[in-house]
Parts: sequence; structure tokens; C-alpha cells
Amino acid sequence: MEPSAAAAVTAVARRRLLILLFLFSLLFFAYLSFLSSPFSPHSSSIGTASSNRKFRSLSSSLPVHPLDPLTVDEISTVRSVLLSHPPFASPNPFPSIHSLSLAEPSKSVVRSWRPGINPLPPRRALVVAYSPSSSLSHLLTVDISSKRVIHHDTVPLSAAHGYPILTADDMSRATSAPFADPPFLQAVRSRSLAPSDLTCVPLPAGWFGKTEESARLAKVQCYSHAGTANFYMRPVEGLTVLVDLDKNRVIEILDNKQPIPLPSDDDTDYRYDVQKKKTTKQRAQYKLNPITLEQPEGPSFTVEGAHVIRWAGWELHVRPDSRAGMIISRARINDPETGKAREVMYKGMASELFVPYMDPTEGWYFKAYLDAGEYGFGLQAMSLDPINDCPRGAYLMDGVLAGSDGRPFVRPGMVCVFERYEGDVAWRHSEGPTTGINIREVRPKITLVARMSASVGNYDYIVDWEFQTDGLIRIKVSLSGMLMVKGTVYKNMSQVPEHEDLYGTLLTENLIGVVHDHYVTFYLDMDVDGPENSFVDVHIVKQETGAGESPRKSYLRVERRVAKTEEDARIKLKLYDPSEFHVVNAKRTSSVGNPTGYKIVPGATAASLLDLDDPPQERAAFTNNQIWVTQYNASEEWAGGFFVYQSQGKDTLAQWSEKNRPIENRDIVLWYTMGFHHIPCQEDYPIMPTVSSTFDLKPVNFFRRNPILRAKPYTEDDFPVCRPQASVQK
Amino acid sequence: MEPSAAAAVTAVARRRLLILLFLFSLLFFAYLSFLSSPFSPHSSSIGTASSNRKFRSLSSSLPVHPLDPLTVDEISTVRSVLLSHPPFASPNPFPSIHSLSLAEPSKSVVRSWRPGINPLPPRRALVVAYSPSSSLSHLLTVDISSKRVIHHDTVPLSAAHGYPILTADDMSRATSAPFADPPFLQAVRSRSLAPSDLTCVPLPAGWFGKTEESARLAKVQCYSHAGTANFYMRPVEGLTVLVDLDKNRVIEILDNKQPIPLPSDDDTDYRYDVQKKKTTKQRAQYKLNPITLEQPEGPSFTVEGAHVIRWAGWELHVRPDSRAGMIISRARINDPETGKAREVMYKGMASELFVPYMDPTEGWYFKAYLDAGEYGFGLQAMSLDPINDCPRGAYLMDGVLAGSDGRPFVRPGMVCVFERYEGDVAWRHSEGPTTGINIREVRPKITLVARMSASVGNYDYIVDWEFQTDGLIRIKVSLSGMLMVKGTVYKNMSQVPEHEDLYGTLLTENLIGVVHDHYVTFYLDMDVDGPENSFVDVHIVKQETGAGESPRKSYLRVERRVAKTEEDARIKLKLYDPSEFHVVNAKRTSSVGNPTGYKIVPGATAASLLDLDDPPQERAAFTNNQIWVTQYNASEEWAGGFFVYQSQGKDTLAQWSEKNRPIENRDIVLWYTMGFHHIPCQEDYPIMPTVSSTFDLKPVNFFRRNPILRAKPYTEDDFPVCRPQASVQK
Repeated sequence: MEPSAAAAVTAVARRRLLILLFLFSLLFFAYLSFLSSPFSPHSSSIGTASSNRKFRSLSSSLPVHPLDPLTVDEISTVRSVLLSHPPFASPNPFPSIHSLSLAEPSKSVVRSWRPGINPLPPRRALVVAYSPSSSLSHLLTVDISSKRVIHHDTVPLSAAHGYPILTADDMSRATSAPFADPPFLQAVRSRSLAPSDLTCVPLPAGWFGKTEESARLAKVQCYSHAGTANFYMRPVEGLTVLVDLDKNRVIEILDNKQPIPLPSDDDTDYRYDVQKKKTTKQRAQYKLNPITLEQPEGPSFTVEGAHVIRWAGWELHVRPDSRAGMIISRARINDPETGKAREVMYKGMASELFVPYMDPTEGWYFKAYLDAGEYGFGLQAMSLDPINDCPRGAYLMDGVLAGSDGRPFVRPGMVCVFERYEGDVAWRHSEGPTTGINIREVRPKITLVARMSASVGNYDYIVDWEFQTDGLIRIKVSLSGMLMVKGTVYKNMSQVPEHEDLYGTLLTENLIGVVHDHYVTFYLDMDVDGPENSFVDVHIVKQETGAGESPRKSYLRVERRVAKTEEDARIKLKLYDPSEFHVVNAKRTSSVGNPTGYKIVPGATAASLLDLDDPPQERAAFTNNQIWVTQYNASEEWAGGFFVYQSQGKDTLAQWSEKNRPIENRDIVLWYTMGFHHIPCQEDYPIMPTVSSTFDLKPVNFFRRNPILRAKPYTEDDFPVCRPQASVQK
Repeated sequence: MEPSAAAAVTAVARRRLLILLFLFSLLFFAYLSFLSSPFSPHSSSIGTASSNRKFRSLSSSLPVHPLDPLTVDEISTVRSVLLSHPPFASPNPFPSIHSLSLAEPSKSVVRSWRPGINPLPPRRALVVAYSPSSSLSHLLTVDISSKRVIHHDTVPLSAAHGYPILTADDMSRATSAPFADPPFLQAVRSRSLAPSDLTCVPLPAGWFGKTEESARLAKVQCYSHAGTANFYMRPVEGLTVLVDLDKNRVIEILDNKQPIPLPSDDDTDYRYDVQKKKTTKQRAQYKLNPITLEQPEGPSFTVEGAHVIRWAGWELHVRPDSRAGMIISRARINDPETGKAREVMYKGMASELFVPYMDPTEGWYFKAYLDAGEYGFGLQAMSLDPINDCPRGAYLMDGVLAGSDGRPFVRPGMVCVFERYEGDVAWRHSEGPTTGINIREVRPKITLVARMSASVGNYDYIVDWEFQTDGLIRIKVSLSGMLMVKGTVYKNMSQVPEHEDLYGTLLTENLIGVVHDHYVTFYLDMDVDGPENSFVDVHIVKQETGAGESPRKSYLRVERRVAKTEEDARIKLKLYDPSEFHVVNAKRTSSVGNPTGYKIVPGATAASLLDLDDPPQERAAFTNNQIWVTQYNASEEWAGGFFVYQSQGKDTLAQWSEKNRPIENRDIVLWYTMGFHHIPCQEDYPIMPTVSSTFDLKPVNFFRRNPILRAKPYTEDDFPVCRPQASVQK
């Protein structure tokens, strides 16, 4: 890495030479890994996690694309640059690093970059640091090649515009602070609980007024892990500790002193090692024979470097991100009619989440999380299980992240990429007895999936980007993990007074699953055949026929309404007043004169019903509509604002849209919010089966004809010969 | 079959003896087929279509369950009985058989029947016949064992209540009639088309007034198959032939004489044999390596007889049906806490479809199909491609149907059943850095799918019933095939006058994809822990907090509203006024006092916006709401009425609901309508990529805790060793 770093600041000629050297060495490395990789046509066995590691070790050492995330070496370089730069160089405590990630080159630079022809644009890092002592935040841009800080802003931090994302250190300090606090320990013992049995979690305090404007705060609540790894099912109800994250001390203990018993640990431990020991009294799971996705000839996709994926005419850049979890960039698809690659989406990611609980009482009212900006959707994304989180042979992509001390660390297998076949068909047709023609044509449906999973406390989110051969992109969010539950004195619904609101469902003795919502807001920078796009509301309206016009009294007619400004593109979905929503390139009409476009197709969803001026809803005003369109602005990427922690909602998508900028034939960004209402039920205890919602980005008059027309059906020869592992080992 | 048929009418003792003989011989046959079947643990290779045939030959000879469909022998017996019964015995022309299928025993008989303990209830057939000469329809019940007609109604048929389903003969006569009609041939030649190039299709005339009350009518339209198997893309626009189905002659020729050119056949032929010959000029499909679902140890489900499927605690009866396509009965699931089977659904099926096109002009206004009642969703369900319609090794179930002459015929592989793994997770959880506990537990998601596909003319519908290990049932309808298109003089949108409505999208030169809707209405006879159920609207309402009650201004509260009568259960879905919809058994509360239930969870859907008094909407009034609940009535199964062809909509779900019967703590039927608005686009030409919608039936406080708690993760040992077929053959 170093030679190039040096080279990049010198004359362009010399830089180019070195870049060329890189590309050659890269090709050589790629070739080496290729030989033993799942992508090798010679390879007779499916790639394993170990063979994928060859990709990974490569991935963390050499950037080959302008959007490749910072490598271990690059993050180390950034840190070394910071160490000689005030205030990091000063004797004062080293400001904590809340974010250290790639500073993306400008969109125009990335779009004009050509691999092998242009050198990589200068590699730069965006650093967000925070000094508790001065209550100042620092926004720095570090040029890695020249090892210089090329930009340094200081922002006096306050709840007025919120604080940066929590660091791992913030969280561990917050959860340990109470244990140094005698009154807390007293409160625990008064419940006849042993402090050593407790696992505590740091919860953002949110913003509700003066209290949350005084300091950087977390609310800590605890659970008992006695008898179970599933401590979330054993809340110490009615005990909340308010902690100052900067002064690192307990400010207040909220103890309602109600004698709420600790829910039982009986059969709550989900670990398979524990469950498999259960007697038949607790009926065992029915044995299922293994069923797996097999590709003896290897996957059909290739990986350039670590992040550029090519498959079935698609080319896209996939990277892990500490805040968004996973970012899809430069999604382009080859047009079968011309053989040329066409732009579809410049950048897509989960921008922010909103998870409000529906319990206004002391220990619960503040639970209205903005997970991406408060915790970091990517910081909470753990390593995937290579054979259970993703199909066998999936390509595992590492995440390279920075700690609060600025040091890099690798999170192995933070993202996986795999091909999917689920026994469905991409297209089919049979002729029936009516025409008597003997035709049965069926094409199996094969797709490519990029996946990451974030474990934000009790909840596990799985985000899939699925690409189809017909040009459709399906985004799926799945929720799993465990519920956030509440202790209660009640053991049976018969004990509950008629008009008492439990704010949820009695799941088992002494345990309530509290009603809550989930919203996930996606940033979708669509560039359909280029950046200049328009948003069209393709409205479906009932048209009544005139007298004598037709035996029909009515039919549905389509009215196209092009959105002129951001206000025209604030969409609430209506079942009885439906529309399609197209992002079109009006200057690139099809051969028969239709504008080329992609439409967003919402799946089943839910809308937030909270008062617009309820503090949590103000901070999450980006959920006030299901769809928004804004004029592209590089600084408007995070729907809840750049600084979300304890924010007052003064820098959200809703404010940006209020600028009401023109969006016709402009570079525009599409925003979609997916929602879930969750009324818990007993089946959500003690673990929660996965629930999913999807939306699609679908080509509409983008292709001349359906791209899968030439797709091939399976023949028996396509199928492998498989034997059980055991029979082979014998 | 004969011995038992004789036995069934004699003394119970003797009958039981024979039943026992059956069960033994059945076991023997089952064992034989088992040895070479995919269900054999000894089998090292995945079952093939041929090994499945062993099941099938067995399936068509012996009924083992009260709901097993009529066998070949039984249908032959019924026909022989009819031949000695007037009017079938008379010298008059043999009345055409429009339906000959199992007359289900009463629900109470089926629910109390125990295999191996009770004999099969008497096997009976329901016959719908029609005499054109007398314009009488005959509804007969034939007892197969006693070979007697035990019930015979004659109904004077008229458009007042509609005609029976079309027979294959009706359709072929309708499409050949025009070719014996000189004016039609003249109209074809005047378009300089060769009659021999035409493929014509019979379209139901629907009901719009006097014309459709005069006779049993079809409207025939034609397409050119010159140069392509995809004749649907080459409509002979503006030529419609009205045919009398009984008199078998042309009544009227509607010829708008507009010079609308025949759209080009260029690259419309979808057959792979044709496509693979295409030059690289028309870019070939990117080669994808095979990816398949493999189960070297065989599937985990078992099949008793041909129709009883057992898998992962589920037991259900699956059968092909000439009208519904596929019927799921007696769905029960084993409760892991007690080991006992619990009832979930007595019967579920697609009851009716509604497909209105949005073009009020002469050749199009009448296109508003009720496919199940007019064409027969099952009659149009062709044999599935055993390796492309379903994953390799799927269990293929034959359909046994009757022709209009009453003779039986077998449709091989009309339904398939298979296990699915798509690389998704049923449940997962990781602990993160916050708690620092090292946990990563993931359970792969494996499901069971029963599938059929109906090719109703140009459209192919795929209906999946998917069963999960956590008790969830997902119903998915997928649409594929080709569009119904319209010829036009326009070659480019620039030629279309500004205010002219094309009623659709210009797909290619001279071809319009007409806007249309699809609705599929499902009959769901839920029996949650038994027949006595109630329907509960679990309403989610915003609750504002009182002054000083909480820093929160609002939260969501749940209000349960039990539907007293059918009127209370007519539901239109509202995004901003949401509810969950539960079917509960109020007398079977859970251990903590919640009623046990299942909820229906709608997916993305569409609602019909047509005028309620528009004739097509009157006939399809069952789509006026997304959800209905009616009191169970064995005669109310077909949402559009028993006789749908040219019906006036006087016998639909909407009328039944008007009875406003009590439905609290009763045997109730849940009805759900799934909808699609389809604005065609160029990607729907010349073939249509599959589009799907789903809804779920999901346990809610039905289980004490999540049933998959004890599910097992995969280990490397679970995975097979696979080699490409080719490498083996070498």
C-alpha cells in the first residue's frame, strides 16, 4: 500500500505507472485466488468459508475501485496522520473516534472512472471525532495518499442537533457505571437479585425536553441471565439508570419499587446445545432431512477485488458500512439488445430505522430507537454463520471498521453474496386443450443475493438485496431475534382488571410483549440511464363511460403526473386511490417512444400513526410518508440527520423536502420507508420467528422486450450427482 | 375397487373386513413403491419423475381417505350408472357432463373419521350435466358403492342464474364454428390473412343485458400463429365472432373493418428450441451454472395413498380439483408441548377469479373473466414440468378428471409437492459487543410447498400453499404466461394524438398491452381447535396521553372487536386505520388466558375500483371487500356462484353476506381476495415475467411458545457431496 500512497502525491505520470503496477500485481493475486476459489470453473467442490478467506485477505489489502471501503492499512495511516494533528496530538485525552470511513469521491468522479484506464481517485477518509472535555465534535477529511488532513471542522455539540453515534466504549462504560453506584446495587439487592446475575443494556435517552438537552445520556436497564442465555426474557422491571456518557457516572436511578417478579427462565434458553438435551416430555423438533442449494460447477458470479460483483449482466459494488450496514453502489445491467451496460442505481442503502414502543410509562416511553444513527446498523452487524445465515458456498465479505481509538479491526463475513434458487419459475407457459398446441415452456428462477444481518440488542435485522435476471431488484428486510419484553405481576389474563391496558400481550406468566412498530427508510439514488431523472405518479383512476358509449359503466384509466418539486413527491399509499411510481429518464425514450424507467413497487407495509408533534415522531419525521423524492445533495444521506443521538429532528428528510426544490429532469434521490406493526403473541416467546417485508425496483419500459426471453430451462444433465456426507466418509 | 364397492353396501362387519384387506394391500403397495421412491432412506439418488409414477399409479386406483378424489374406476362406475338412468339412458343426445367429481361427505363425518378404525364413508359423485335440447341442467348425486343415483334435481337453465362451466367440447366447437362461416372467412381474407394461419380462442360473453340472456354464448377472437408459436402477440384486431354454444353456429360477426396491421412476429417465439438458434446479434442469455435443491437422503415428507401429506408435524390432504385447481383439506399441526394434532383449517382453495380489462370498446368491454367458474381453474391446469415447474425430485400428483362424455382421463403431475430451502433463516440471534456474550444461533428455514399451475389461455397462474415449521401457512399466487394484447395502427407514441386513450401501453410497433386487474378469492374454512370460531378485528388505534401522564404525546393501543354477524366482518384494508384479523377459538384459551387463534396477514394487494353496478363488478361482487366472514354453509363454496357462466351475480358471496347471519362462536368461513393492478410495460412483451402476491395464515397465541425453539442448525456433516452430472458420465 505504501508505495502507492507515496506515488499518489507525485506527478500524474509517475502515479499512473504505479497504478499500472498495481493492476498487474492485482491480476496476479486474483489469478492465484481464482485457482482455489469457488469461482474457478476447474474447481469441483463448492467454495467453503476457508476458500472464501482467500478473497478476504486480498480484500483487506488493496482497493481496486473508488468506492472500496478503507483497508486496514488505510485506517492505520489515517490514525497515524491524526496523531500528529491537534487536538489528537495534544496531551489532552485522545478524542474518541465515532466514525472513520471512506470519504466517497464526488459522484461525477466515480461515474467517469474507468478501471484499468483511470487511476483510483485520491483515497480519503471522513473522520467524526468527539472531545467530551470540550464538548466539541471534529469533522475531518484525511487524504491518505498525501497523509494530510485536508479539511477540519469543529462543531460545538449539543442536543440541538444531536450527538454522534455511540461507540463500543460508550456502551461498555454506560453498562458498567451502575455497578459502581451503591444505590443501584441496593435497588438490585432489594429485589433479592445478585448483581453478578445481571446483564445490562444501554438505551438511547432520545429527546423529550430539558433533561435530554443537558448532557449526552444513556438509560441503562438490566436483565437476569440466571438460568438462561436468553436474558432478554428476564427483565428487572421498574429499574432504570440514567447515565452521563461523558462524565461516566450515574445521574439518577428511577426505581418504581413495585414488586414485579422476575419471569421464569423455564425453557427460554434457545441455544441448540441446551435444547438438544431436552427430554421427549418437551417434544423434540421433527427431524428434517438436509436440503441444500448445490452448485457443483461453482457460482455464476465473479468478484473483482473484494466488492465488485458481476452476475448475469449485472455489475454492482457491494460494501459493508459501519452506519448503513451494507451499501450497494453503481448497479448497472447489460442490455441484451445492445450488449451495453446501462445505469440503474448509483447508491442504495438502509439510511435510518425508527422503532417506537407503545408504552407511555416511566421505564418505556423513551424507547423509540433510531438504530442506524444511534447504534450504527453496521457496527451491530456481526459475522454471519457461513452455512446457516447464508447458503453453503456463499462468498463472505469482511467488514473493516475502526474502534473509538481509531485502530482498524476486521469483522469477518459481515456481508455474504450468493445465488438463490427456490424452486420458483421466472416465466412459464403451457398451451391447454383449447388451442390443442403442445407447448410447455418453463424457466427456473435464479437470483443473486447480497445480505447482511445487524443484531441491535434483542432484535436481529436481515437486509437482502436480491437481483433478478429480468432486471428486477428486490429489497427484503427480515426481523428476528427476541422481543423487548416487560415484567408484570399478572400470570393469567383472568387476573387483569377489565379496563387496564397492558400495552401489549401477556406472553407467559409475568411477561408482556409490548406493542411496537418498525420502520426502515431506504436511500435510493436512482440513476436510470444517467443522473437526470424525473418522478412520475402513474395514477390509476376510475373512468365512467358516457351514455351509450359501452355496455360497461366504468373502467380504469391511467394518468401520468410528473412531479415538478419535492412537494409533489410526498406519497402516502392508498389502496383505493392507487398509483404506480416511476423514476424515468425522459430524454431516453424507448424504441416506441416510452420513457425508460424503473418503478418502485411497495410490498405490504405499515404507517406511523403517532402525533406529528410527538417528540419521537418529530425526530423520525422521515416516516411521515412512505415515499419521498429529493434533489440529489451529497450531504443528505441519513434520513434522521447526520447527528441523530438525542437529536430534536431539525435535520431530517422532512426538513430537506420542505426546501421544495425542483426535481424534474434532475439528479434525484428516491426514499422509501417500509413499516411493521408488531402486536406480540405467544409465538414470539422465547424467540421470534423471522418476519419479512419487501419492496421492488422494477424496470418499466427500460428494456425493449423481456430480457429473459432467451433464458434456458433445466435438463436432467444440469443436475449434479449428490451423496450424503456420511456415505462418503464411510 | 369393485370388491369394496360391493362390500360397502353390505353389513358393517363385512365392510370392515374388506377395508382391512385394503389397508394391508395398500401397505404392501406402499412398501413396494417405497423401496424405489424418493422417500426411501436407502435410496441414494433423488427421486425422479419415473419413481414418482409409482406413487401415481397407486394413487389412481385406491381411495384411502374420505376426501380422496374420484378414481378412474369410480368415474367409470358413475358413467355406467348414468347410462342406465334417464335422460342419459334415453335415445336423445347424451347430456354433456360439465362436472363429475367427489361429493364430499359431510364435514362432521369427515372430522370424526379415523383411518384404520372407521371404514371410508360411502363414496359418492356429484354430477352436473346439461341438455342443450331441453335447456335443462341436471344435478345428480351418484352413490358409487351401491351404483345408484340417490339424488337428481333438474334446473331450468337460463342466464338468470348462469350456466355451468365450459367443457373442452364447448371450447373446440366454439373455435371451429367460425371456419364454417363464409362471412367470417371473407372478413379474414379481406385482411389478407390465411384462415389456416389463425388460432382462435373462445371468450365468455359475460352478462351485460338482453343479448346475454338469450342463449349460451361465446365470443371468439383469433390470432395469427404465422412465424411464431406466440400467436397471442399477433391479434387479428377488430374481428369478434359471437357463437351460440348450444346451436353450435355463428350468430353475429363484429368487424370494425379498421385497417389495423398484424403486429410483427419478430423475436416473439419464446420456445427455447427457437431461441437457442438466435445469433449473438440478439445477445444470448448469460450462462448460469446450474443451482439446484438437493436432498440426497430424500425428502422429509411422507405420502399416504396419494393425497395425505405428513411433514414436520403437519398433516394435510391435498387433491387436484377440476374447478378450484387444488384443494387443501384437514390441515392439522402437532403441538410440540402436548404431542397432539390440532386442527387449523378444514378446507382451503382458490374459489373464484376476476380479471376485468379496462377497455370499454366493442372488442374488449366484455373481457372480465371469472376463470374458475367459466373455464375451470383445474380443467386448465396442465401437467407440470417435473424439473422446471418444481424442484428436482418433487412428488408429482396426478389429476383424475372426467370429459364431457363422462369418461375419466388422467392428467399426470397436475400438482407437485416439495420441500423448499432458499437460503433464508427461520430464526437467528447474535449477541453483539454491547453484552460481549459470544452467541450466534441461526436456524435455516425449510418449508413444504404444494403447487399447481393453471394455463387459462394466455395467462399462467401458479398457486402455492407453503407450510412452515413454525405453524405459518403462506398462500402465494404467481402470474406468468403472456399478456392479452390489442392491435393498433400506432408504431410510436409520437404518433398518438395527445388526448387519445390507448387503454394501455404501446409495447412494440402496432401492439398495446391493455390495462387490467386480477383478483383471486380464497375460500378458507378455518377450524382453529375445532369448528366453533369467532372473527376478531384487533384494531390498532392512536391513543393520546393525558396532561402530565408521559413525556410521550401518543402511542398505539389495541382494541379487540369480536364480529357478531357477517356485516361486522366486511373488511376493506386501510394503511392509516390498521387492524390485525384473528380467527379465534374463544373456548380454547392458552395457558395464560389468551384465545387460541390464527390471523390472516394480507400481503401487498389491490382493490377493484369499478362501479358497484357495473355488470362485471356485480358478477364479481365478491371482490367488493378484501375480507369477508360467513357462517359455514356447505352450499356456499364458490364466491361467484355455483353457475357462473353468463351469471348476473345473484348468487355471490356478497348476497350470502347480506343474510347477516351470526358468526360468533360458530363454524365460520374466512374469505380473502388478493388483487393486482396490471399496467403493462415493454418488459411484459413478448412474455411476462412472473409477478406474485401472498397472504399468510399465522398462529397467534395458538402455541404456548414458538414451536421452532428446538430446531437444529446445519453442520458441515449435513451437506452432501455433489459432482456435475457430466463428470460422472465421463
